[in-house]
Amino acid sequence: MSDHKLQVIPLGGLGEFGMNMTAIRYKDDIIIVDCGMMFPEAELLGVDLVMPDLTYLKENQEQIRAVVLTHGHEDHIGAVPYFLSEIDVPVYGTDFTLALVDRRLEEYELEQEPRFIHIKPKETVEIGPFKIEFIHVTHSIVSAVALAITTPLGVIFHTGDFKVDPTPTDNELFDLHTLAEYGKRGVLLLLSDSTNSDRPGYTESERAVRPRMEEVFNRAERRVVVSCFSSSIHRIQLVLDLAQEYGRRVAVVGRSMVSVTEIAHSLGLLDIPDGILLRPQDAMDAPPDKVAILISGTQGEPMSALARVAVDNHKHVSVEQGDTVVLSARIIPGNEKAIFRMIDHMARRGADVLYGAMSPPLHVSGHASVEEMKLVLNLLRPRYFMPIHGEFRQLSKHARLADHLKFAGLEEAFVMESGDVLEIDHHGARRAGKVPVGRVCIDSGSVDDVVQEVVIRDRRHLSEDGIVLPIIAINRHTGRIENLPEIVSRGFARAEDGSAFMQTARQIVAKTLEGSNQEEKTDWGVMKEKIRADLKRYIVKETSRRPLIMPVILEV
Amino acid sequence: MSDHKLQVIPLGGLGEFGMNMTAIRYKDDIIIVDCGMMFPEAELLGVDLVMPDLTYLKENQEQIRAVVLTHGHEDHIGAVPYFLSEIDVPVYGTDFTLALVDRRLEEYELEQEPRFIHIKPKETVEIGPFKIEFIHVTHSIVSAVALAITTPLGVIFHTGDFKVDPTPTDNELFDLHTLAEYGKRGVLLLLSDSTNSDRPGYTESERAVRPRMEEVFNRAERRVVVSCFSSSIHRIQLVLDLAQEYGRRVAVVGRSMVSVTEIAHSLGLLDIPDGILLRPQDAMDAPPDKVAILISGTQGEPMSALARVAVDNHKHVSVEQGDTVVLSARIIPGNEKAIFRMIDHMARRGADVLYGAMSPPLHVSGHASVEEMKLVLNLLRPRYFMPIHGEFRQLSKHARLADHLKFAGLEEAFVMESGDVLEIDHHGARRAGKVPVGRVCIDSGSVDDVVQEVVIRDRRHLSEDGIVLPIIAINRHTGRIENLPEIVSRGFARAEDGSAFMQTARQIVAKTLEGSNQEEKTDWGVMKEKIRADLKRYIVKETSRRPLIMPVILEV
Repeated sequence: MSDHKLQVIPLGGLGEFGMNMTAIRYKDDIIIVDCGMMFPEAELLGVDLVMPDLTYLKENQEQIRAVVLTHGHEDHIGAVPYFLSEIDVPVYGTDFTLALVDRRLEEYELEQEPRFIHIKPKETVEIGPFKIEFIHVTHSIVSAVALAITTPLGVIFHTGDFKVDPTPTDNELFDLHTLAEYGKRGVLLLLSDSTNSDRPGYTESERAVRPRMEEVFNRAERRVVVSCFSSSIHRIQLVLDLAQEYGRRVAVVGRSMVSVTEIAHSLGLLDIPDGILLRPQDAMDAPPDKVAILISGTQGEPMSALARVAVDNHKHVSVEQGDTVVLSARIIPGNEKAIFRMIDHMARRGADVLYGAMSPPLHVSGHASVEEMKLVLNLLRPRYFMPIHGEFRQLSKHARLADHLKFAGLEEAFVMESGDVLEIDHHGARRAGKVPVGRVCIDSGSVDDVVQEVVIRDRRHLSEDGIVLPIIAINRHTGRIENLPEIVSRGFARAEDGSAFMQTARQIVAKTLEGSNQEEKTDWGVMKEKIRADLKRYIVKETSRRPLIMPVILEV
Repeated sequence: MSDHKLQVIPLGGLGEFGMNMTAIRYKDDIIIVDCGMMFPEAELLGVDLVMPDLTYLKENQEQIRAVVLTHGHEDHIGAVPYFLSEIDVPVYGTDFTLALVDRRLEEYELEQEPRFIHIKPKETVEIGPFKIEFIHVTHSIVSAVALAITTPLGVIFHTGDFKVDPTPTDNELFDLHTLAEYGKRGVLLLLSDSTNSDRPGYTESERAVRPRMEEVFNRAERRVVVSCFSSSIHRIQLVLDLAQEYGRRVAVVGRSMVSVTEIAHSLGLLDIPDGILLRPQDAMDAPPDKVAILISGTQGEPMSALARVAVDNHKHVSVEQGDTVVLSARIIPGNEKAIFRMIDHMARRGADVLYGAMSPPLHVSGHASVEEMKLVLNLLRPRYFMPIHGEFRQLSKHARLADHLKFAGLEEAFVMESGDVLEIDHHGARRAGKVPVGRVCIDSGSVDDVVQEVVIRDRRHLSEDGIVLPIIAINRHTGRIENLPEIVSRGFARAEDGSAFMQTARQIVAKTLEGSNQEEKTDWGVMKEKIRADLKRYIVKETSRRPLIMPVILEV
């Protein structure tokens, strides 16, 4: 019997939303499961992306053998380019997952070619002391897998993200049989997706969305505008199928929607009927009852295609009286205000906006609810359990579910947070200290669909480039600017009050305001992003410095 | 036939959430229905309360005859003190509604005694040309009424807020018969609550909460902590009843929870079993399985009792391993982050926190869903319809429901926003311009449960007292402050960099940070409020000025 230790170290995604990444270590070999990013919260205004801190991994760089990806959502793959720019190891994933990684890599200039290793469900690879079997699971994205990682001390089962969809639209069933086999042979540790542990019952099948969407196409007398996540290939397929059935052509609008549908199509994962596509610039010229629009921007992101359409500032598409707009996605907590503002804009324009809870639904979750979580626990009967992917409340609810399974051999459920180390040896499992974790902020410089260089912003060193706060007072009802914009700054040398530089900066903010229409002006999210982008362009050009720019909008 | 005009002017609550107020004018007589406040959104940080702009009413002050209140929620009564400080007219309402107004008036120093006129359901009063019948409706608050306002041109029916609860816990049924009678006789205009127009089906009865709450009391082995809105007398009664059944004493915690339960008890609306109350300071000494705690703060408001308990900073109550915490309230959009942070804090402490959607439910809405809205439309069969109480999306959905009722005599549904004027004469109804509306920001000065004076903050005149922005960089994982707090300001003369005043201000912020525990430091909402309060106290004392104080917390 070996007295070597196995360590399982969640480096992101536990006790926080997004940025999923787990290191698994046995002796001198480490593999990384997933490598995701996080979308910045309002408190992080001034940055574009958030990546996990790689300090621990860089310190152990020599031991890292591979990154293994479960599926292609940004919170699982979004930090791969950043990771590879620091640590060059092979990346394992399904074709679709790796294609999505490749798309992101275009924004970076890596020194080396990425080493992609394409895998398929039911295949097994050996990486050092780890034997990894890939197991197909159902999820809102296609080509998602769970991992059964056989180690010298036993099997670690990592679910990735999943739901147990008994009737997936692509007829690729969740491979429950393989789970059952691992369960029979014995699982040392289960890491399982906790996202929906506060939802009772079963998550509905992706197929449940069809009746409502069909009703929309059946009843709509003018344009049908559907927004979903660009990675929701199932949902996009549904819209294409219904458009064909109901004699509409489809315009695909928004950068991510265009590129992901192209990738899915090229891999044979998306069936695009011949002649159904319409160029976005032709969408408004075709008869309104013959057009459907697939558009990105479900979360009200200020610069997204749908948010621009909502404030009538998109170059090709507008929403008009009598159009039907469907938001076929969940509302990520924190985005409610931005999403509801966007809906209100479109409702004012006379569109019938469909969103939220309905039966039959407009959207179903991609994550397992409580009963599915119990099913996976029952099939795998692990000795140890670590809930992953969720805020603390979700992890602890998931752990409570497992409490009821103690009769079946479960010894302990560990509710851990990013950075906590779980150590397992032949005596059992226990907590064993912490490794450094944190967030790295990225200023992507991407403005107006133009991708510029990526800059890592270490907010601990504000003093370096300083902070600039434009202050604008806007009347919410009239959209009128009540004072000249003010700019205050700290630690940014060029920004003395009254300096020519500062005067020009104020004029730039004023110009941004003037150039915005009424609806944009009453929408803080849009205005903050526009002001930030315009001011950033000016400051970078003039000074080559990148202060944090945080617009403060006062509602008066 | 008269050619005089009737005007219906929503002054708040249409196209925005909260601040419900409608003026109804016939010739030289105006009555005001409801007079509510709005809770400030994040963009309004720096103010405590938001009131409707009274410009139009002050201009027409001589014609105003009365304020008529439908029920006692803050978004319907919260601006009455502010209104009465400007315009002295009688206020009509039920006993409970007026008692809640009176409680708020204690914070103001009115020059005159308020003139309260107590009404009961089925009573009728005459105010100028208006004959108003009060009609009992079911809602989440007791003593709620709808208004049937007979005018020379016909009946205006104002629902107030309502749901159609067929089995209310107090057995006071919705007076559907009176609606039916008005419907038979003819209704000129219906103003109806749109809050839940995006929810299909029927809202469940208040009684539906009992099974889940009973299960909680039945299963809890330690303290049961229930948080609900302090005005939810039905819900509070349920907790008291269950506590008695299951042998627990109840501590009532939080300023509003204490005062509203006292008011309801004194009016005979709340039955408090003998000897059941426990003083908050004794709650932690009693055996944990013999205690229940009723506490305010469902929305994660940073200074509320529950938010303080969550970060272990409440003087009497803490949450411990094994306790059960129940959030029995809806999540108001915009508050998700604060509420989820609060839940996470308590989950980390080992509490089982129950929240969100469950069946049976922990909470039911007080507002009608789509089928109830249709029922009211069917019973009243109005000639004109104006959806009220809701954002634009909700108003327009409500109007769409009425579309299907055009066969029954509905001529037009008007989707209007605050300030829009609806004019009705013997030719019919039409839009007729706008009156000034807006928001008035109030800096209540209320800090640490001490009520100070009320200051109206006109954010259009920032130049007067200026703006102060404390900037703090906090590491989210460690709660460590990464830089000395910075303070930037604009238009606030005393605040030159490096001045002794400014140095002291920075020290005050640093002290606030030091004096906060780990959990508070990782909770931006709490920290912003604490910094704002401490800095405000210092600045007001030193300078007698009240700049806007907007803490900027950088997550690093």
